[in-house]
Amino acid sequence: MSKFGMYVKFTAHAGQRDALAKLLLESAESANAFEECELYIVNISDTEPETVWVTEVWSNEAAHDASLGLDETKAAIQRAMPLIAGVEPIKLQPIGGKGL
Amino acid sequence: MSKFGMYVKFTAHAGQRDALAKLLLESAESANAFEECELYIVNISDTEPETVWVTEVWSNEAAHDASLGLDETKAAIQRAMPLIAGVEPIKLQPIGGKGL
Repeated sequence: MSKFGMYVKFTAHAGQRDALAKLLLESAESANAFEECELYIVNISDTEPETVWVTEVWSNEAAHDASLGLDETKAAIQRAMPLIAGVEPIKLQPIGGKGL
Repeated sequence: MSKFGMYVKFTAHAGQRDALAKLLLESAESANAFEECELYIVNISDTEPETVWVTEVWSNEAAHDASLGLDETKAAIQRAMPLIAGVEPIKLQPIGGKGL
């Protein structure tokens, strides 16, 4: 089965980027429990002060979709929602490389 | 020192995506020799048929910059150039998460 990847661009409300990044790092911590979540990296941008990018790689798309249905994920989304002005996902199919 | 990351969006000339992805996978293979290159993942897109995204994480920006000066890197860029219609890099500062 193909691996599944995403770059997710979160735009925070003004002044809320660091609070949002902290919540996303907590989600990354939770992702340690999921073997099928291979990467969940939180990035900030030097040039876009309200942006947080999350790099995700999953063993398959079904595992990613299943994670969205978990109570823990839903609660994390609820906590983050007030900080978020916009979300733009880019879906990817990782095909190889170093660290995969 | 801060880690350094990039998403690099390569747009291939029509029909050249798979050839470009193959060359980028060879670059990923070369990156195995660089301890400071932590991730170099090649991705294709289900929705953009000429796009290849590369996810890079380096221990620091200087290591990334130094890699661009190597003869091997310059030769790889020369081989890829005829296949490439455009390159759009997004610079990132990875701050944490799973797999970092």
